[in-house]
Amino acid sequence: MTRVAIAGFGITKFSKEDVKIESVLMNATRDLFSNTPNLTQKDIDGVLVSSNSNSKYLSAILSEIVGIQPSIAHSVESLCNSGTNSIVSAYSYISSGLADVILVSGAERYDSPGQVLEWDKLRGEFKHPIFWASLFSKSYKRKYRITDEALALVSVKNHKQAVNNPYALSQKEFSIEDVLTSKKLTEDLRLLDCSRPCTGGASILLVSENYCKNFTDSPIWISGLGQKTTSASFTKNLTFDNMESTKIAATKAYEMSNHKSKDIDVIELHDAFSVCEPMALESLGMVDQGKGTEMVKEAYQTGNAKINPRGGLIGSGHPLGATGIAQTIEIVQQLQLEAGKRQVDNPKVGLVHNMSAAATSSTVLVLES
Amino acid sequence: MTRVAIAGFGITKFSKEDVKIESVLMNATRDLFSNTPNLTQKDIDGVLVSSNSNSKYLSAILSEIVGIQPSIAHSVESLCNSGTNSIVSAYSYISSGLADVILVSGAERYDSPGQVLEWDKLRGEFKHPIFWASLFSKSYKRKYRITDEALALVSVKNHKQAVNNPYALSQKEFSIEDVLTSKKLTEDLRLLDCSRPCTGGASILLVSENYCKNFTDSPIWISGLGQKTTSASFTKNLTFDNMESTKIAATKAYEMSNHKSKDIDVIELHDAFSVCEPMALESLGMVDQGKGTEMVKEAYQTGNAKINPRGGLIGSGHPLGATGIAQTIEIVQQLQLEAGKRQVDNPKVGLVHNMSAAATSSTVLVLES
Repeated sequence: MTRVAIAGFGITKFSKEDVKIESVLMNATRDLFSNTPNLTQKDIDGVLVSSNSNSKYLSAILSEIVGIQPSIAHSVESLCNSGTNSIVSAYSYISSGLADVILVSGAERYDSPGQVLEWDKLRGEFKHPIFWASLFSKSYKRKYRITDEALALVSVKNHKQAVNNPYALSQKEFSIEDVLTSKKLTEDLRLLDCSRPCTGGASILLVSENYCKNFTDSPIWISGLGQKTTSASFTKNLTFDNMESTKIAATKAYEMSNHKSKDIDVIELHDAFSVCEPMALESLGMVDQGKGTEMVKEAYQTGNAKINPRGGLIGSGHPLGATGIAQTIEIVQQLQLEAGKRQVDNPKVGLVHNMSAAATSSTVLVLES
Repeated sequence: MTRVAIAGFGITKFSKEDVKIESVLMNATRDLFSNTPNLTQKDIDGVLVSSNSNSKYLSAILSEIVGIQPSIAHSVESLCNSGTNSIVSAYSYISSGLADVILVSGAERYDSPGQVLEWDKLRGEFKHPIFWASLFSKSYKRKYRITDEALALVSVKNHKQAVNNPYALSQKEFSIEDVLTSKKLTEDLRLLDCSRPCTGGASILLVSENYCKNFTDSPIWISGLGQKTTSASFTKNLTFDNMESTKIAATKAYEMSNHKSKDIDVIELHDAFSVCEPMALESLGMVDQGKGTEMVKEAYQTGNAKINPRGGLIGSGHPLGATGIAQTIEIVQQLQLEAGKRQVDNPKVGLVHNMSAAATSSTVLVLES
């Protein structure tokens, strides 16, 4: 069974621009080609598109636009973790020997239809993700006696880190006071607690061990992966203060990679809302239950950007289908020591955590140089 | 590398009914469970949904409805060959060792948004598939001096065969005269030359070699597969009288399975329109170029149902995301000698051909008992 490496990537600026989904895919993929000079269209066996767009046949369209005639070509959708679902699918094609080189391209528009959870009748009228996030926040704060200030610090930290990410939607710092006085959306959630939908694309190249030296001198290996879907409707959750699917996915990914949570040097996790960051840190086994905000505070105070160095979803913006791929690209850059102002001190092992719809589904990837 | 078997299936009646997409998926999957008595929800590692529906998170929703908590869960879309794209993806998860048991469920509604090719600006106003089919028909008839009667026989044969398929949309026989006097849609295409969109679902269970004996005594093996996407817009085709993507996909599938076209005993091919059947037979290497209608005529006259025994798309109806899965189920039943009145004489090797959008993309599967 061949190992699978990440051997190239491309990304667009995350914005509120009105760009067609096909153009977003094209722009991220053209950036990938220009970053990977030895790559030609003929090298590519498969093109997977990750998006919540209602547009059809996007993989064939992207392929035609950039001049690829792939064997494997389709779109993948699983709401907010479509991106890492595509990466795992690409991994399986390569690992099985059906392909050697797969291009995964994720894109979304600011007005994506994936943002409103129309299908979950159990939510009644409360179909926007802010409602589950609000329940999570109330539940988490009550159970672990966490203050609004402690959660607001997630947003402060991630906005600050995004300033060093030229592709991030936000380029502005905010204070705890700014977060706590931003527009009140629900009793437990303010505007600056939320990631924002945006237009953005991210493309990544997965390659078998034999082929990767053709494209890069510094391959990053996918050494572990885990996925779990516990339900679709969030009211199936028995508790709102931890992420069951994340725990299961992380356990698998650690086991496959022969690593433990303490080995992780840098992490991109799915901070769709401020409460998600401490909850994810806990469910990933990085810190004890209820202690996530302390870990965030320590990282912030010591200036260590190891948690969401690119600014996470809150700082970077959240173009659904592109998010998991953009998270993975950040970890690749960190492990290649090419993250510029965002560079964490000499990381060897990194982790990506990408989830959907109130953590009903999670993917965890472990990457290493 | 483990071999991959098909160890179970379920299907719904194809109809014009107004049923929600989630219910169609559920009905096909419940049928699969009832046909596969030893299968429990806990056995299933992955759930892939094949559909052109705009509804999101369908794989998680189906999983919750039927009580599965899968690792792998997402939707796959590639227009009309979404179904076989999902099957190949499931194959790769199993073959790579990431999973042992994958449920693939395809569904579509009669009003699927995948039916109009909105994205192909090169088509001008002619975005409905009948326009490419009309060009194909004109081109094919002119090049090989094929009569309207010869193409009409495809529809006659497939409607006749569908009468023996209890799940088919059509249960009525038609004469050549009926086809030639049915509503004229374009200069070269009449209503009965066309497959019809419909509501339908089909689910299939892919299993690794070690696990398949838990679920079936007569596994059907996927011994070959090939896929190719040559373009998205059909005007990239240099000719309209053969299917380039099908030729390439078939060559790969034959090579992988160590079979040649002459070894194929039964075939489900993508007769979206009558002209597609002879063209596909030729591009699959079953008969010389331009001789496809002669092969159809011989099969019809000798009462041999080996080409599209369930009635093909023209007879069965074409619920886009379910079609490739329903085709595969037919070949499984044929190879298990369980096809009832549709049974072809003792077939050992079968083939599935599923394509999208003017044959810009094709999948070919070789199955054997």
